[in-house]
Amino acid sequence: MKSELTSQDPYYQQIAGRLEGLIAAGTFRPGDRLPSVRSLSRDWRVSVTTAIGAYGLLEDRGLVEPRPRSGYYVRARRIAPESLPRRVEVESDPVEVSFDAITEKIMDAAAQPGVIPFGAAVPRNELLPSAKLASLFGSVVRSAGASAFQYSMPPGLPELRIELAKRLVGAGIAVSPDEIITTSGALDAVLLAVTATCKAGDVIAVESPTYFGILSMVMELGLKAVEIPVVPGEGVCAEALAEAFAAHPVKACILQPNFQNPVGSVISDDEKRRIVALAKRHGVTLIEDDLYGDLHFSGKRPTSLMAFDNGSTVIHCGSYSKSIAPGLRVGWIVPGASRYHRIKSLKYATSLANPTASELVVAEFLKSGGVDRHLRKVRRIYARQTHEIREAILECFPADIRVTLPAGGFLLWCQLPEGFDSEAFALAALKRKISVVPGTLFSASGGLRNCFRISCGSPLDDTSRRALGILAQLARA
Amino acid sequence: MKSELTSQDPYYQQIAGRLEGLIAAGTFRPGDRLPSVRSLSRDWRVSVTTAIGAYGLLEDRGLVEPRPRSGYYVRARRIAPESLPRRVEVESDPVEVSFDAITEKIMDAAAQPGVIPFGAAVPRNELLPSAKLASLFGSVVRSAGASAFQYSMPPGLPELRIELAKRLVGAGIAVSPDEIITTSGALDAVLLAVTATCKAGDVIAVESPTYFGILSMVMELGLKAVEIPVVPGEGVCAEALAEAFAAHPVKACILQPNFQNPVGSVISDDEKRRIVALAKRHGVTLIEDDLYGDLHFSGKRPTSLMAFDNGSTVIHCGSYSKSIAPGLRVGWIVPGASRYHRIKSLKYATSLANPTASELVVAEFLKSGGVDRHLRKVRRIYARQTHEIREAILECFPADIRVTLPAGGFLLWCQLPEGFDSEAFALAALKRKISVVPGTLFSASGGLRNCFRISCGSPLDDTSRRALGILAQLARA
Repeated sequence: MKSELTSQDPYYQQIAGRLEGLIAAGTFRPGDRLPSVRSLSRDWRVSVTTAIGAYGLLEDRGLVEPRPRSGYYVRARRIAPESLPRRVEVESDPVEVSFDAITEKIMDAAAQPGVIPFGAAVPRNELLPSAKLASLFGSVVRSAGASAFQYSMPPGLPELRIELAKRLVGAGIAVSPDEIITTSGALDAVLLAVTATCKAGDVIAVESPTYFGILSMVMELGLKAVEIPVVPGEGVCAEALAEAFAAHPVKACILQPNFQNPVGSVISDDEKRRIVALAKRHGVTLIEDDLYGDLHFSGKRPTSLMAFDNGSTVIHCGSYSKSIAPGLRVGWIVPGASRYHRIKSLKYATSLANPTASELVVAEFLKSGGVDRHLRKVRRIYARQTHEIREAILECFPADIRVTLPAGGFLLWCQLPEGFDSEAFALAALKRKISVVPGTLFSASGGLRNCFRISCGSPLDDTSRRALGILAQLARA
Repeated sequence: MKSELTSQDPYYQQIAGRLEGLIAAGTFRPGDRLPSVRSLSRDWRVSVTTAIGAYGLLEDRGLVEPRPRSGYYVRARRIAPESLPRRVEVESDPVEVSFDAITEKIMDAAAQPGVIPFGAAVPRNELLPSAKLASLFGSVVRSAGASAFQYSMPPGLPELRIELAKRLVGAGIAVSPDEIITTSGALDAVLLAVTATCKAGDVIAVESPTYFGILSMVMELGLKAVEIPVVPGEGVCAEALAEAFAAHPVKACILQPNFQNPVGSVISDDEKRRIVALAKRHGVTLIEDDLYGDLHFSGKRPTSLMAFDNGSTVIHCGSYSKSIAPGLRVGWIVPGASRYHRIKSLKYATSLANPTASELVVAEFLKSGGVDRHLRKVRRIYARQTHEIREAILECFPADIRVTLPAGGFLLWCQLPEGFDSEAFALAALKRKISVVPGTLFSASGGLRNCFRISCGSPLDDTSRRALGILAQLARA
């Protein structure tokens, strides 16, 4: 569906123009599915080739996007550059991370029932495959007998590692099940990786903004953080890393290459290749936290950093907390040959074993193809929810708000002009029973005060639309 | 059932003598249940008072032991002092812990099917309440709906913490559910406690011998370990701790006060009181790992160290890995008021959340009384298995072997004369598909080479009796 094939024929353009008119008129709104190629051909009496050509043109213009096995969808309208967050300056010297009491307050609140959970990076209840999981827990646990309740010692259940190894192929990673160690979620994996590569006082590079759980860990381990700016849409670039590696004795670098939390950016394959080569030259270990990678809105899953590593530069970490269910606690680490034994014994010495029943359930869910069916469903929903909530924010917040336009995951990063105090904003929102996470929690150096994160794990319904209205009022105040 | 009441009447003594004769003749063997008071009264035509008096006498002589709601059981015969391990000298200076590759080899082997698991401190499959747990997983997960698959964020599910608080009363601990944080097993809890109190380079006191998981953790955290000798039967004493606290800047001390792994000792209440007072005076935090406390063979559950703490000297850690099932990953920590927020945020920054379904299942299992029924059953079985395996070891091993006589748990600690190489022994045993854990793994300073640990999580059947025979041969070689 290249534009070279289509743009030469004016008939394609005519059909594309009609579709564009319908989108502009609001007949098809952002996130809506457009007529299939087959039905367009039948209903408008055009050839299939013409219909495909028309959609190709609209895709080139950024108006629609294809989603695998699903068809074409209207993209969010406002992708004007002024709606996207600006790149921000970061602290260039390593800092000691410290959090005050606001983190616990925000986290506790996010977990409370009755609070509108824009703060919680979790799928709402209806998006978890609960019935399927409940049935799997019943059947798998019963058929496994007592072994479902014995320790799953490192490296973890073989049947799960086999399924994980198969799935990692889709991320560009070729490993045997024996190269994988299962963990209790991705954060457990990242902790193992950081502990294996850094000791107190060492310098570690982190993204800015980055997930506050990573910053807490860096703080608790007594590491110094050097911030690498995340460019919305592009992620971290090799150039920024090169500066940090040249200026500071960086031991390791934690990156979320795909649908980064909170910015939603994906690092391009070329840039990933450059980053791995650079880290290798500097002897820096790249700790990749790829837990959102399966939640792409369209096309293929983005490649993992480890796919570009032919040595032992990258430690790959992942989990099903975001893509299946948070409460399962099923994650994994691919430490690379040189660090395998070290990380396995670290796992013995820390949380020891993982929940066996969860591992059996996820192995079976993967094996049966159920995970793929689930992912196809939730990707479409997250794409729509994220687009709709973004549009709603742009409509009701002050006009100078900027919001990311992610291509996967379910998080939005919002930026208001300098001077906006997101901590006061978040605390005021909590009083109105709405949770959002202030930008300061995502910064090692306490910056990003004018930003906040909105989770789109729940749909835009009347309640959440009202809540966005309240947030917009608070932002103006 | 005091001896003052009974020993004055010679008729009690006559009945006691007859019972003693039956025990000596092997009619009732160690671990066997003796006739109930009621049936003895009926069958031998004596009064209930006389029967009770006779059993009281035998109990005073150490020949029988009462078990709650179950009756009297024959105690292991050979409790001659020469059958018990000697107290060993320990390294008095703090040491850096280091393990070589043998740990991973032993641990991997212990997990393999087809290996006789004298090395694995786990209940055999038949002793797990699998049918009950499977049914609970089915019902609880179904009725909880999606919430069974959402994060159980720190401090953990309220319904579980309520049940835990109720049960801790039995250990002498009075806390509200809000003072408890749930963890992924006891090791996760101990890691949180150690991380909250020590940093790399600090000195921590550990028992010698002690569970190798604790030593691995001490090594991985870069702490220096000072060894406190565990006296078989008595555990660690305040005097030994006082010496260590006086000589070294000890920050914290990890103790298993009840049915210690591997020695099975219980510290007396008086000594516990002295230890807590001593630690308080020296500003040392006591980290109590009480995961075997519920597995007492008779009488009441021994008291936790925290029961003697009126300040914030003790951090209490526990888990159901040994008493319900290892694979659930349900443990807890009671950090004390002054450390609560620190440990809660450490939990956020490390493994984040626990397996939600497991927490729901254990909460329901506790609430329904099922845990108590299960414990009553397995306590009897562990008592018998431990006694039988001890007897078998004393029979078939070289005569100079010494074996602990635990009053709870399911572990035996065996000691051969100096010069015996338990590492070579364990590796030779592995070749014969039998796992045992060599003593060196239990020592921070690499001592205890003449000792090994035998788990009695599985019964003494023909297979394990043959395996003990092979071990005895290897020990002679």
